[in-house]
Amino acid sequence: MAGVRELTVNLGERSYPIYIGEGLLDEAGKLLAEHGISKKSPLMIITDQNIAERHLTHLETVLRDGGFTVTSAVIPAGEASKSLGQLEKLVGLALENGLDRKSAIVALGGGVVGDLAGFVAASYMRGIKFVQVPTTILAHDSSVGGKVAVNHPLAKNIIGAFHQPELVLYDLLTLQTLPEREVKAGLSEVVKHGLIWDAEFVTWCDEHAEQLLALDGETLGYALYKGCSVKAAVVSQDERENDLRAILNLGHTIGHALEAVAGYGELLHGEAISIGMIGSARLAVQLGAPEEVYRVTKRVLSRMGLPVRLPEHLDTDEIMRALMHDKKFQEGTITFIVPVAIGKVEINKSVSTALIREIVEQLKQEAV
Amino acid sequence: MAGVRELTVNLGERSYPIYIGEGLLDEAGKLLAEHGISKKSPLMIITDQNIAERHLTHLETVLRDGGFTVTSAVIPAGEASKSLGQLEKLVGLALENGLDRKSAIVALGGGVVGDLAGFVAASYMRGIKFVQVPTTILAHDSSVGGKVAVNHPLAKNIIGAFHQPELVLYDLLTLQTLPEREVKAGLSEVVKHGLIWDAEFVTWCDEHAEQLLALDGETLGYALYKGCSVKAAVVSQDERENDLRAILNLGHTIGHALEAVAGYGELLHGEAISIGMIGSARLAVQLGAPEEVYRVTKRVLSRMGLPVRLPEHLDTDEIMRALMHDKKFQEGTITFIVPVAIGKVEINKSVSTALIREIVEQLKQEAV
Ligand SMILES: NC(=O)c1ccc[n+]([C@@H]2O[C@H](COP(=O)([O-])OP(=O)(O)OC[C@H]3O[C@@H](n4cnc5c(N)ncnc54)[C@H](O)[C@@H]3O)[C@@H](O)[C@H]2O)c1
Ligand SMILES: NC(=O)c1ccc[n+]([C@@H]2O[C@H](COP(=O)([O-])OP(=O)(O)OC[C@H]3O[C@@H](n4cnc5c(N)ncnc54)[C@H](O)[C@@H]3O)[C@@H](O)[C@H]2O)c1
Ligand SMILES: [Zn+2]
Ligand SMILES: [Zn+2]
Repeated sequence: MAGVRELTVNLGERSYPIYIGEGLLDEAGKLLAEHGISKKSPLMIITDQNIAERHLTHLETVLRDGGFTVTSAVIPAGEASKSLGQLEKLVGLALENGLDRKSAIVALGGGVVGDLAGFVAASYMRGIKFVQVPTTILAHDSSVGGKVAVNHPLAKNIIGAFHQPELVLYDLLTLQTLPEREVKAGLSEVVKHGLIWDAEFVTWCDEHAEQLLALDGETLGYALYKGCSVKAAVVSQDERENDLRAILNLGHTIGHALEAVAGYGELLHGEAISIGMIGSARLAVQLGAPEEVYRVTKRVLSRMGLPVRLPEHLDTDEIMRALMHDKKFQEGTITFIVPVAIGKVEINKSVSTALIREIVEQLKQEAV
Repeated sequence: MAGVRELTVNLGERSYPIYIGEGLLDEAGKLLAEHGISKKSPLMIITDQNIAERHLTHLETVLRDGGFTVTSAVIPAGEASKSLGQLEKLVGLALENGLDRKSAIVALGGGVVGDLAGFVAASYMRGIKFVQVPTTILAHDSSVGGKVAVNHPLAKNIIGAFHQPELVLYDLLTLQTLPEREVKAGLSEVVKHGLIWDAEFVTWCDEHAEQLLALDGETLGYALYKGCSVKAAVVSQDERENDLRAILNLGHTIGHALEAVAGYGELLHGEAISIGMIGSARLAVQLGAPEEVYRVTKRVLSRMGLPVRLPEHLDTDEIMRALMHDKKFQEGTITFIVPVAIGKVEINKSVSTALIREIVEQLKQEAV
């Protein structure tokens, strides 16, 4: 069994710990109580159908044994659940089950559950406590930083809040049931955290791709610990995305546009940003970064089994239009996160859309 | 013309000014610019049909003349617009009109517009700037403190946030078009601010009821200034309603229950809390407060033309059930704001529901 790793996301009074280890679900009762979750008020676990089948009874049992009053809400799996409609349903359930201002919401799941449940917690009675129990690799990313949101028919993550959890409890054993494609997609954000902050960790990822894909506990524990640490370091310095935090968007400007155009189904988030990061690396080299930026980025993402080529049938004009609707389109200029070396990026506020269009075209030709 | 009054809501970095005076709409361009509202990004005015007919063109013109890019959204008047459905529509409009992270939402209206538009501002892109331009007397209350929310079919104001405006711009001239019933209902919260904080101001209200009902500019300006000041003093000490802020709920526990049972139509918010404040005064006297508390409360509310008797056809059981669903029902005990004297209240966390039921019955017999 992999030892338990712990780190703190430093955000002043909103600081919180992340626990990463095998079998941590068994400690949920103890850990929630230690971190101020009330046993007098009912708590609500929000999860999706896939996860509910595998891990919900386990968590419910542990929490009930620990003296908590537990209600569970199971949403359909998938991005479509990040909607105002689901928010309304979940708030209805919370009311019916008597959740009050001292209650907590526990998100058991991936980024979809985390983002939605987090927005329920942020807005129910104008904010109640929130606990993240991530069950995907990608969720190492979404569980740090407090960004929560639902989608609007016209844009992803456009209705949301900043709402920090009380703690994050990452049980590596829950990841054993994750479909392979989701494993790879999650590793995309792990690699991203290396690419923006830590060249050594990129090398480590490159060397440990096999063990990561095999979900080896010790290797995975380290990778998630490192990924969370980078994200925590960034958001600690810039909680509300005024400047630095934008670097976390490496690969996301193109990535989000691809997700929108592909109709939120063909490409997983991690796959879309893998292609986006190849795009950023290409852009980087065209703007003067060493050729290695492109080569290493492509190698490590390929090793993780991630797509690097943009599906040709996605229309370039549509992609460009989706790009313009993006939040990062601010006051007429488009902001792009561009690597300057492996492990280091810069925020470039004046990338021309013509150049991005070129990159998009090149990505369709990318050798795989 | 009444002179311009100014006060500051002290909330650290979230502090903001309130301007109160006749003809202030004409200064909107200047004031928004002075308070950091961007001219580069489009802003969106949200208002309702009734207000749009009377004051929207005026505000649009002033802002456009001031160099702002202005979009307007007109919602149906009434509480039903404080819904997730309207939120979705408004976010759609914001996206279509290119509102970005530097944009602002301007709420031109009463509490309904303020609460809804405020929640749009709080959640659009996880929070953009917000300006309140209140057009009702009641909105002197809703525009201080940053509570914004929409309703859920099962409960009022249950989905929301704390989101402070950049400034509040209160043009007394806009109040001249307010229907008489709304004038009275708004004065209910003005009186409430006296009852919880300032005995002298209660006496002043008693003596100036006539001028207030006649919308005399100087008198109204002073009343709104005092009302806002009391609310500002309270929320400055307790922004997120941990303790003190609860005193603002004088009359609201019963009031909200009445609104819910009467079906959000029969009773205006201010009318419901007028009855609620009579209930609190009755409760106070039964718990040992001087009889004057009841007598003065009733006199001043009656002078403002507000209802003091609970409509007999409203079912007591239903009222009690609605009370239990209230946010103030926390960890099994019911919290009630109870006057101890005129101008002073206490938070009583253990009022028995049996006693409240008695009060509800008495309120149905209240002499008018
Ligand atoms: N808030 C943030 O900062 C942030 C950051 C990155 C991504 N996100 C969001 O995260 C979402 C993507 O998250 P995701 O990739 O975790 O997607 P997800 O939550 O949809 O999970 C992926 C799939 O795996 C299933 N699943 C999850 N855990 C499982 C398990 N242990 N065993 C078996 N199946 C399991 C789910 O049911 C789902 O079908 C997107 O909505 C994205 O916007 C948010
Ligand atoms: N956020 C808070 O702290 C807070 C505090 C108190 C009340 N509220 C909320 O405020 C709402 C009630 O506010 P309200 O009483 O202002 O109601 P409102 O906004 O519905 O306005 C009342 C009516 O007057 C009309 N109107 C408004 N201004 C007008 C004008 N100048 N001329 C002509 N008609 C005009 C409106 O169209 C509406 O029909 C409730 O939803 C309540 O929950 C919020
Ligand atoms: Zn991402
Ligand atoms: Zn009120």
